[in-house]
Amino acid sequence: MKIIVDAMGGDNAPESAVWGGALAAQEYGEEVLLVGDPDRIMQVLRARGMENTSAVTIMPASDLVDMHDDPATVLRHKPDSSMAVSFKLLKAGEGDALVSAGNTGALLTGATLYGGRIKGIRRGALAPVMPCKGGQVMLCDAGANTECTAEMLLQFAFLGALYAEKINGVKSPRIGLVNNGTEDTKGDPLRKEAYALLKKAGDEGRLNFIGNVEGSMVPLGACDVAVCDGYSGNVMLKTIEGVAKFMAGEIKGVFTRSLAAKLGYLMCKKGLGSFREQFNQDKIGGAPFIGIAKPVIKAHGSSGEIAVMNAVRQAIAYTKSGMIEAVSENIAYMTIPE
Amino acid sequence: MKIIVDAMGGDNAPESAVWGGALAAQEYGEEVLLVGDPDRIMQVLRARGMENTSAVTIMPASDLVDMHDDPATVLRHKPDSSMAVSFKLLKAGEGDALVSAGNTGALLTGATLYGGRIKGIRRGALAPVMPCKGGQVMLCDAGANTECTAEMLLQFAFLGALYAEKINGVKSPRIGLVNNGTEDTKGDPLRKEAYALLKKAGDEGRLNFIGNVEGSMVPLGACDVAVCDGYSGNVMLKTIEGVAKFMAGEIKGVFTRSLAAKLGYLMCKKGLGSFREQFNQDKIGGAPFIGIAKPVIKAHGSSGEIAVMNAVRQAIAYTKSGMIEAVSENIAYMTIPE
Repeated sequence: MKIIVDAMGGDNAPESAVWGGALAAQEYGEEVLLVGDPDRIMQVLRARGMENTSAVTIMPASDLVDMHDDPATVLRHKPDSSMAVSFKLLKAGEGDALVSAGNTGALLTGATLYGGRIKGIRRGALAPVMPCKGGQVMLCDAGANTECTAEMLLQFAFLGALYAEKINGVKSPRIGLVNNGTEDTKGDPLRKEAYALLKKAGDEGRLNFIGNVEGSMVPLGACDVAVCDGYSGNVMLKTIEGVAKFMAGEIKGVFTRSLAAKLGYLMCKKGLGSFREQFNQDKIGGAPFIGIAKPVIKAHGSSGEIAVMNAVRQAIAYTKSGMIEAVSENIAYMTIPE
Repeated sequence: MKIIVDAMGGDNAPESAVWGGALAAQEYGEEVLLVGDPDRIMQVLRARGMENTSAVTIMPASDLVDMHDDPATVLRHKPDSSMAVSFKLLKAGEGDALVSAGNTGALLTGATLYGGRIKGIRRGALAPVMPCKGGQVMLCDAGANTECTAEMLLQFAFLGALYAEKINGVKSPRIGLVNNGTEDTKGDPLRKEAYALLKKAGDEGRLNFIGNVEGSMVPLGACDVAVCDGYSGNVMLKTIEGVAKFMAGEIKGVFTRSLAAKLGYLMCKKGLGSFREQFNQDKIGGAPFIGIAKPVIKAHGSSGEIAVMNAVRQAIAYTKSGMIEAVSENIAYMTIPE
């Protein structure tokens, strides 16, 4: 298996992408293709004595996509960028999966253009996994599609369920529809229509649909997959990140306000370490674009090397999982006859 | 001034509503009308020796609205419920403002039916205030309207700005449009259209519009008023509550996992108390329904007496503020010519 890593993507590129990719090659024994400026990549590898890692191959790309590039057009305008070259390798079958911490919009455009949607799937979705009470929850879609149809939400539910089961090992994942109330009459027309489709899939035993979930129920662990349109999913994802950051900052303040508090901190240090670890996104690594015919993993823009390494681990698991084939086999249940 | 308190509304009614109302009458020196079953109210007052509080008047209502009643029809079906009687008193001018911790949907229906919308305002909005880094942020709309037009979002922005300024004392409140990215091209058609309207109001100096805000920016204190449709506003509000609850629970776990941690807790107790206090919704009291021609305050369903007391304080401030008149004076800037 070969995992393509966009070595020039992300806030900490090329260091994090290169080191993370090389660490993954060492750790998981699969080949990693580092795509980018060969001199820069070699320099970064050398700085860690990793230049002779056997499972790492450098694939040259002279340009790069940055955060200011227009997502819709940059891959055409910058055909020699590390991201565009990565996608061409993926399309040509020279690699099995792609990992990038670069421009999210460009990556989604590329995933659809070069990876292609699975036949019958209307849109790819961004499906990050967030910590929640008792485990993790996948938000699907968290930002790829600001406008959705009910059929798309049904597809996101199936895609999320299959991913949670096959890659994250969740048995019979609980699917919740994010809504402004739990009653089955709640929501705008999109939510009402989606509810009916999800209910039917649940009644037929194809999805473990638990009904509507309010925003508060998602961080409290009510479901394994939270289904939403990309607009509100993005609002939810970012709100979770913002509140966690806000509260973590305030807690930090508690422990630095007096000498007693600083000593108190030392006495709780172990527990606080586990607490912090629970919210450590680096362990997760990245968010898959699901619904695409080849595995594409978006690592967080601020990923460090451990996050990239874990994103590669996820890409390997995704490639091995048979998830994409399972989507194709079940596509009849995910599409609405015209 | 007379504040009407629905004595039978909320999870802790009648105790919290009655004690909170009586405490407010003592504390703020305005008259409070307690609406509900006279015997129960008197019994609850007596339990605290409050039966002779001079500024408290009991207004009889023999029935009550509960959480299972259909919000759209209950006030018609239960004309003698404490909420229906409260609204009739408000409409008849026998009270200046209304506070209830009861069924949110029924309260909104009643606010529109009995309070009436301010002329030119399309819909009333629920506008709770949440703690955020450095202060508070008002979410507007947080659940009254699952479907919105761009004009409604423009109105929510003005309503929120006027409330933040006149009742909460925020000078030149910063207005953000909740969106899935900060760039001015972001969002679905609704957000793009609303952005253009808000930008224009900002350019004309009528609103301090700071642009799009992502979900993460709201808890981190980027704006004083976050403008959203009722669906995503509700998702945001509940997500904030859920993450705060989840993290608070995990932190509690940190301090109970060992003897050392318990001692550590004692050493940080003061700081942790302030931390908790910051997230104490009781201090805020309630969320106004704005855009309605009379002040209506929704106290949280689980409100205790202090929360109800503070909701009455807010109702008094709202009544005195001249906010409703200010909306009428500025209505031309909040409406789009057909």
